[in-house]
Amino acid sequence: MTMNLANLTTSEIIEGIYSNNVAIVSKAITLIESTKHEHRLIANDIIAACISRKNDAIRIGITGVPGAGKSTFIEKFGNLLTNLGKKVAVLTVDPSSRRTKGSILGDKTRMQELVKNPNAYIRPSSSGTSLGGVTRKTRESIVILEAAGFDSILIETIGVGQSETAVHDMVDFFLLLKLAGAGDELQGIKRGIIEMADAIAITKADGDNVQRANFAKMEFTRALHMFPPKENGWSPEVLTCSAIENKGLTDIWELIDSYCKNMKAIGYFDSNRQQQNENWLIQYVEQELLSEFYRHPKTKELLPQLKKEVINGKSSPFLAAEKLLKALKPT
Amino acid sequence: MTMNLANLTTSEIIEGIYSNNVAIVSKAITLIESTKHEHRLIANDIIAACISRKNDAIRIGITGVPGAGKSTFIEKFGNLLTNLGKKVAVLTVDPSSRRTKGSILGDKTRMQELVKNPNAYIRPSSSGTSLGGVTRKTRESIVILEAAGFDSILIETIGVGQSETAVHDMVDFFLLLKLAGAGDELQGIKRGIIEMADAIAITKADGDNVQRANFAKMEFTRALHMFPPKENGWSPEVLTCSAIENKGLTDIWELIDSYCKNMKAIGYFDSNRQQQNENWLIQYVEQELLSEFYRHPKTKELLPQLKKEVINGKSSPFLAAEKLLKALKPT
Repeated sequence: MTMNLANLTTSEIIEGIYSNNVAIVSKAITLIESTKHEHRLIANDIIAACISRKNDAIRIGITGVPGAGKSTFIEKFGNLLTNLGKKVAVLTVDPSSRRTKGSILGDKTRMQELVKNPNAYIRPSSSGTSLGGVTRKTRESIVILEAAGFDSILIETIGVGQSETAVHDMVDFFLLLKLAGAGDELQGIKRGIIEMADAIAITKADGDNVQRANFAKMEFTRALHMFPPKENGWSPEVLTCSAIENKGLTDIWELIDSYCKNMKAIGYFDSNRQQQNENWLIQYVEQELLSEFYRHPKTKELLPQLKKEVINGKSSPFLAAEKLLKALKPT
Repeated sequence: MTMNLANLTTSEIIEGIYSNNVAIVSKAITLIESTKHEHRLIANDIIAACISRKNDAIRIGITGVPGAGKSTFIEKFGNLLTNLGKKVAVLTVDPSSRRTKGSILGDKTRMQELVKNPNAYIRPSSSGTSLGGVTRKTRESIVILEAAGFDSILIETIGVGQSETAVHDMVDFFLLLKLAGAGDELQGIKRGIIEMADAIAITKADGDNVQRANFAKMEFTRALHMFPPKENGWSPEVLTCSAIENKGLTDIWELIDSYCKNMKAIGYFDSNRQQQNENWLIQYVEQELLSEFYRHPKTKELLPQLKKEVINGKSSPFLAAEKLLKALKPT
């Protein structure tokens, strides 16, 4: 059956999402990603229809430096979940990504098995230069995917810059992948990310690496013990796994599952989602207001000079700020 | 010699600061803290005169939960510094403080020895309800104190809420005080603070506590080892000390001193200060713009309702945000 996607009405798109029509889900996400005003309006209607649709999905953030084995992990972990009867969607948040400009070949070749899995859907990072823009699109894509019946949303991020924080703020569970060996490869990890993790999985725990992985597990367990507990009372755990040997993945899933059950029981799961929603509202409003300020011709004219004065110690930051604010006031 | 402080001209105040007249320094800080417009204008002139005055001060942030021994530590550490020929100023950032409303008795009785020390100056937290306001006043007070010749600025914060981040952003070195024993008292520490520390000092390492303190030192040293290194290459150290027995304080000072020499040698000390100045400019402008938004009648009218819709899953955060932004646009 061929279908002309271009001619679908908004309610046909919504119906298509509700019935898990993957081609239509993809089209809806494309509309979300579009910068055209008329597409934005349709996208808004679609989101409004999808957001109130009840679902029982969980959102899992997965992060780690390049080389930590993210793609292989997600491929195997995704297949594990579909074997458990779940419908899996994989999103990537990577504002710096160039590979996705016009082509999703990169992501598809990274996860060749999962891409053929009929119960899995892989959507690479939308192109876009601002983290804010990419974040919004990802959050809205989650709404579509959940309305379409995907119940396990895996959101991958590359573990540099601000994107992990953005992903952390949109998921229920945040998993950090680490190679065995606590030394050099810590270089690539952003400070603060360890404290965000709900669990750390030491990857590639196979062959010669097993001992090193177990040692790293012990070291990290001890290190995490030095952190203050999370506000929800959860104590992050450290596990080892091997994606190639399919080891330890079930344990990771069971940990996530028990975390979610726990957090639902104490009401944290829902209150966290509500808090995230409220934060998105506030963040988005603030972002828009500030970007309006930075686009203002007076700002563009004065800010570079004021910055220079402040950096050279010629002006106080506050006096410079007041000068700028005064210049912006309509007279 | 009595002097009528009320009748001083702005240039007399500036001269008084330059000559380390403590009564005038206090008056200048009071002007900074004032909410009256005419005081603000004088304060701005004073800051402009003080900011470009060369000085060689270092700014040390000191944090720890209540009970970690901050007051005793600062008292003894301050005396150590004045014995080394330094001029010490102590500021407190505590926006929640009620003890300072109209009275500084609280701080003065906390540090009875240091308050009598002619080379030390203690100024409690300015009253004020917003962290932003208190932060600004503290930053401007630092400028005054440094122009007055104080070369060791100790900035105490209480280790809860957002104030440690604010203090971290205004100092050269950030010291975390911890009681021995890694267990229960971690409850009070904010997540993320351990990663901000340039050093951790295990306090009250005396009497029965010595063994426990040494064990905590070992545990924290190991834990810090699991963190990625700081961008300046510094590896945070863990030390033990006893303020009562006057032990370990010299080691802490020598560590801070060698840190500063190191960071000056690689150029980080200055570039960090410049970055902090630039951040203050940007943060202050953004804060002002956003508080204008939150004061807007339309915001006050619509935001609570939109938040409710978003929390209940009836509206998407982004659609709600767009509704609000549209309502604010002048038609």
